[in-house]
Amino acid sequence: MKKILVLGAGLSTPSLISYLLENSKKSGWHVSVGDISEEVAASRINNHPNGRAFVFDINNEKQKNKEIENADIVISMLPASLHSLVAETCLTFKKNLVTASYVAKDIKALKEKVEEAGILFLNEVGLDPGIDHMSAMQIIDSIKADGGELISFKSSTGGLVAPKFDNNPWNYKFTWNPRNVVIAGQGGAQLIKRGMYKYIPYHKLFSRLLQANIDGFGEFEVYPNRDSLIYRSAYGIDDIPSMFRGTIRRPGFSKTWNTLVQLGVTDDSFVVEDSENLTYREFTNSFLRYDRDRSVEDKFADYIGIDHDSFSMYKVRWLGLFSHEKIGLKNATPAQILQKLLEEKWRLEPDDKDMIVMQHEFEYKLKDKFYRITSSMVVEGRDNVYTAMAITVGFPVAIGCKLILEGKIKDTGVKIPTSSNIYKPILEELANYGIVFKEEKIEIPKPNGK
Amino acid sequence: MKKILVLGAGLSTPSLISYLLENSKKSGWHVSVGDISEEVAASRINNHPNGRAFVFDINNEKQKNKEIENADIVISMLPASLHSLVAETCLTFKKNLVTASYVAKDIKALKEKVEEAGILFLNEVGLDPGIDHMSAMQIIDSIKADGGELISFKSSTGGLVAPKFDNNPWNYKFTWNPRNVVIAGQGGAQLIKRGMYKYIPYHKLFSRLLQANIDGFGEFEVYPNRDSLIYRSAYGIDDIPSMFRGTIRRPGFSKTWNTLVQLGVTDDSFVVEDSENLTYREFTNSFLRYDRDRSVEDKFADYIGIDHDSFSMYKVRWLGLFSHEKIGLKNATPAQILQKLLEEKWRLEPDDKDMIVMQHEFEYKLKDKFYRITSSMVVEGRDNVYTAMAITVGFPVAIGCKLILEGKIKDTGVKIPTSSNIYKPILEELANYGIVFKEEKIEIPKPNGK
Repeated sequence: MKKILVLGAGLSTPSLISYLLENSKKSGWHVSVGDISEEVAASRINNHPNGRAFVFDINNEKQKNKEIENADIVISMLPASLHSLVAETCLTFKKNLVTASYVAKDIKALKEKVEEAGILFLNEVGLDPGIDHMSAMQIIDSIKADGGELISFKSSTGGLVAPKFDNNPWNYKFTWNPRNVVIAGQGGAQLIKRGMYKYIPYHKLFSRLLQANIDGFGEFEVYPNRDSLIYRSAYGIDDIPSMFRGTIRRPGFSKTWNTLVQLGVTDDSFVVEDSENLTYREFTNSFLRYDRDRSVEDKFADYIGIDHDSFSMYKVRWLGLFSHEKIGLKNATPAQILQKLLEEKWRLEPDDKDMIVMQHEFEYKLKDKFYRITSSMVVEGRDNVYTAMAITVGFPVAIGCKLILEGKIKDTGVKIPTSSNIYKPILEELANYGIVFKEEKIEIPKPNGK
Repeated sequence: MKKILVLGAGLSTPSLISYLLENSKKSGWHVSVGDISEEVAASRINNHPNGRAFVFDINNEKQKNKEIENADIVISMLPASLHSLVAETCLTFKKNLVTASYVAKDIKALKEKVEEAGILFLNEVGLDPGIDHMSAMQIIDSIKADGGELISFKSSTGGLVAPKFDNNPWNYKFTWNPRNVVIAGQGGAQLIKRGMYKYIPYHKLFSRLLQANIDGFGEFEVYPNRDSLIYRSAYGIDDIPSMFRGTIRRPGFSKTWNTLVQLGVTDDSFVVEDSENLTYREFTNSFLRYDRDRSVEDKFADYIGIDHDSFSMYKVRWLGLFSHEKIGLKNATPAQILQKLLEEKWRLEPDDKDMIVMQHEFEYKLKDKFYRITSSMVVEGRDNVYTAMAITVGFPVAIGCKLILEGKIKDTGVKIPTSSNIYKPILEELANYGIVFKEEKIEIPKPNGK
C-alpha cells in the first residue's frame, strides 16, 4: 500500500480526498487526513476502510516527523504560510510534496536541496494557481509548435454564485474567503500593453475594466489583478508585448464596489473609534463631510460623484450602509466593519451553488495572419461541500499526486505545472470531471501598434 | 563655562547655533557642533572663539560617550530616527537633552528612567512640533482661565515661498525635504467634527479643503494632516468636539496635486520598469489606458476628470509630465521620479526667500456667548541660510536650551512644551526675533449642532 498523507481538511479538500479514497482500492492507497479539527478530518474520510482521520497540530514537531516519515507522499492543504514547515520535514525524510499554493520564497530557497534529494515539490497545482497555468500553457505550447508568435495573453478567473442562485443586485455572493474579497487589489495592479507597462493604483483599479462573454453564461466584467508581469517568465513568454491578468465579476459589480473604495471603507490600516456602538449609517457618515442639513445618502452620492437615483446607489442602500443597525464589532477597521455587513448580505445560502469562471484570450501571428483564441471554463458546484471551488482546487491536486505515485511524473526539484509532461495528463483526466475549456478560434485584423 | 553640545548641523540649525554663539560670551557658554561633514559644522561656527566644530559619527560609540560625558547639555538636531542613540547616552551620563522632533516610542519608553535620573529630555520644541504647541496652549490656557469652554480647535502650518518670490503657477517651491512633500498624506487623515470622527483616505485628502486668510498675506487653503485626534490628550482637551490639523498651501495647489495622486504617480511602493530610459511623457502614459489614437494629454484630462483647458492642466504641463525629456533615474519608484521633476521645477533659487505660515482657530463658549479667536503667524526667511524654517525651528530650541541652563526650566522627565512655565518664557523671547502671533477675536453666532 502507498501511504498518502493529506495535511489540512478545509473547504477546498472534499473533492481531493474523495478522489483519493475512491481510487484507493484499485490503486492500493491508504489515505491519512490530519486536521486541527478531528471532526472535520473524520467527515472527509467518512469511515472509508482505506482512510484514517487524525488530529494534526503543525506545531507538534514529533507528530509531524512521525507522520511525514511514515508517508510515501504528502499533500499540504494547510494555510499557505505553513507549507514551509511541512516542506522542511519532507526534505529531511525525502518525501514528495504537492500543494495548491504559490511557491513562497522559503520554498523556492529549498530548490537545490530538493533536487539533490531527488524528490519533487509540485506547487501551484490547484485552480488559480493551477488550472490557469496548465490550460494556458497547453495553448501557448501549441501556438509555438505551429510556429505562431504570441502577441497578447489575457487570463482571468472569478469565483461567483451559479446563475440559478444569482438573486441579489450585486450578482455576487461570497464563495470563498470574504476578507480577501474586501481587501482585494489594495496593492494596485501592473500589466503590459503593446510593449508599454501600465500601472494602476488601487483607487483606479475598479474603473479600469475589460468586458468578457462566455457562451451560455452571458456577460462578465474583469478588473486587473495584481502584477501580471511576473507570469511572463513562468510561462516562457518574456517578450510578449501584452499581458493581463484579471478577476471576473458580473457587469456592474466593480462600478459600485469602486464607490466603497472611493469612500474609504475598505481601509484596513486603522481602527474606527468606538466602532462597537456606531450604526452602519454613522460609520458611513464618518467618511463624509459634516453637514447637518443634508442626508448621509445625499452626501455620499455627491462625494462619490454618482446619481442619487442610480443603480449603484440602490446597491449601496441594499447593503445597509445607510441603516440604523448597530455594528457591534469592537476595535474594528473599516474593512472589518464592511466585511461584517457583506457577510450577512452576500451569504451563500445552504442550497446555493457556486461557480468558477476562467477565461484566457490569446492573440498571435501565424504566417502574416492574426488569430484570437478564446478559451473558457465554467464549473458549477454540486452542493455546499463539493463546491466548484473544492472541485477545481481538489481534482488537479489529487491527479498530480496520483501521477507522481504512479511514476508518470518523474520530475525532481521545486516545480509548477507548466511543462507538458505534467499538465497534459492532468488536463486529460480533469475532463472526466467536467473541468473542460471551450476553445474558439477566429481570424482577426492586424492589431494596431507594434 | 557651560558646555553645549549640538549634534547635527543641517539646514534647520543656523539660527540655533548663531543664537548660542551670540549669547555665549555674556552667558559663559562654549558651543561644540558635531556633524558628519566637518565643513558644514565649521560653517556654522564660523571661527567663533567660543565655538568648536568637529566631525561627528553617531556610530562611533567612543566619541559619542566622550562628547556627551563632557557636555552640560545636549541638543540633537540629527535625523529623528537617531535621537534614541543620543538619548540613551544622555541618560547614562545624566545630561539634559533638547530636540525639535516628535517624541518617538523609544524615547517615551525612557520616561521613568529619565525622571529617576533627575534630568529633562525636552522634545518637540521646534516649529511644528514646537511653536504650534506653545502658541496654542497659551490661548487654550487663557480661555480656560477665563472660564470659557473650548468647542473647536483648528491648527494649520505650511512652509511656502515668500510672496515676492512666489512666481510659478503652483505658488509653491520646495523649502524643505522634497520627499516628505511628495509622499505627504499617504496614511490618510483623521479628525473630529462636532463629536463625530471623520476619516479621509489618501485619494480624497486633497479634495477635503478648508480656506484660510491671513491679513496682509491673502488667501490660503488647508488640507487635513494625519491624525488630529492624538493632540487632544497632549493639549488637555480630550473632550473637545471639533479638532482639526492641516497643512497650508496657496489656493489651487491641492486641486492640481490631487490630479497627480489620482493618476498614481505619488506611489512609492513599486519600481517603474526601465525607469532610466523612459521619458516623463512615457512615465505619465504608463498610468493611462493604451490608446494609440489619443494624446497623453487628452487621456490624462479625461481619466482625471478635468477640463482640457483648465488651469490644473496648465500646471501639470508646466511641470513637464508630458515632456519628451528622459528621466535618467535607475530603478525608481513613481514618487522618486516625480520628486526628480519637482526638484527642478519647484527649486528655491539662491536669492529666493521662504515663508512659514501658521494659523490657529479657536471657538469657545463663555457665559452663553460664543467667540472665535484666530491667531496667525507669518515668518519670512532672511536669506538662503537663515531661512524661515531655520529661524522658526532653531530659536525655540536655542531658547529652551538657555532656559534649562539658567535653571528657569526645572522640569524633569520626558516633556513637550505644553505647560506655561516652559512655553511662556520661550514665546516671550521669540517675539524679539519677529516670531509673533497676531490675534483676532470676534463674537460668533451659536454654532449649529452640539
